[in-house]
Amino acid sequence: MAFEFTSPVKRLIEELKKIPGIGRKSAQRISFFLLRAEKENAIALANAIIDAREKTFFCSICNNITSEDPCEICASTDREQYKICIVEEPFNIYSIEKTNLFKGMYHVLHGNLSPIKSIGPDELKIPGFLNRLDRSKIEEVILATSPTTEGNATAHYLSELIKQRHPSTRITRLALGIPIGADIDYVDSVTIAKALEGRIEL
Amino acid sequence: MAFEFTSPVKRLIEELKKIPGIGRKSAQRISFFLLRAEKENAIALANAIIDAREKTFFCSICNNITSEDPCEICASTDREQYKICIVEEPFNIYSIEKTNLFKGMYHVLHGNLSPIKSIGPDELKIPGFLNRLDRSKIEEVILATSPTTEGNATAHYLSELIKQRHPSTRITRLALGIPIGADIDYVDSVTIAKALEGRIEL
Repeated sequence: MAFEFTSPVKRLIEELKKIPGIGRKSAQRISFFLLRAEKENAIALANAIIDAREKTFFCSICNNITSEDPCEICASTDREQYKICIVEEPFNIYSIEKTNLFKGMYHVLHGNLSPIKSIGPDELKIPGFLNRLDRSKIEEVILATSPTTEGNATAHYLSELIKQRHPSTRITRLALGIPIGADIDYVDSVTIAKALEGRIEL
Repeated sequence: MAFEFTSPVKRLIEELKKIPGIGRKSAQRISFFLLRAEKENAIALANAIIDAREKTFFCSICNNITSEDPCEICASTDREQYKICIVEEPFNIYSIEKTNLFKGMYHVLHGNLSPIKSIGPDELKIPGFLNRLDRSKIEEVILATSPTTEGNATAHYLSELIKQRHPSTRITRLALGIPIGADIDYVDSVTIAKALEGRIEL
């Protein structure tokens, strides 16, 4: 019979392994940290998980994670209600807010269209978005999905939908180009091609 | 004011970031997984953490993690009581047990000597080991600390201690060499040197 960890540890490793990106070795390392850390720290993590599950849900307007409905951004009266930025995941909101450049509203899709993973328009929060588009006066929709095959397909699909329903709405996509600080030698040629296409006058 | 996640999520991210090797991005990714996974899965992880902390402790003989004292290995009567394999961490026991080649006992140091981190002999479980050595008849001690500067220093320190107290005890260290399946071109020259020194007759 093979040696096994004592059952509470085995169970902890099994639960940790369910997290995507955490394999056996990482699960062992994390469970060991939790076993050797101050007991308060381990219990605080356990409670934080329970709390986060029990006190948060998705905003009924934008689908961001929130503990109040509507969320802080949807409830704000200072923001530009006529601009909606579409993102894949709630964390993307954080990345965009950090720039301090966008003062409009958000809509979280919770994924991208993906025939391989059988994610169609109904699996994403697209019906809710169309509802918002039809009911409020939206001047601009920024499609901030990732520049990947799936993100591009989602942006294309949404842009067609918006054009059909509200031809006057401005539809934009984040610029593609060389990231700040990158060495051009290490940037892939598709990115360089996009940067050339989108070059700006000085 | 910068945008922030709702406070239960912020707290979960902060708690996850305390785990070594988990930075802000990983903490966000994991907390998102936990928020979107089945509620049962998230709660199961929280309970597994609490259980592992409350039901496990270190074996009073070998310092392995256990939920019974002495641990399964120390309590076993089938094992070779006269051999002790010294390892750095409890998980190392698992790696050695998987080989099915060692049927002796273990002693977990819970680290290595490290002047930089102010870890001296008293911070490790060395006094307990010497106690075992003095009280039982030990024929062989296998020093299975890692072949790193700190692991080697620890092995050297222990081997000197053992020689002083029990000159007839056999002291061994795991062989160094080229790992199975490696391409020699990609193996560092110190390892190749060790493999040459320790070459075996065919």
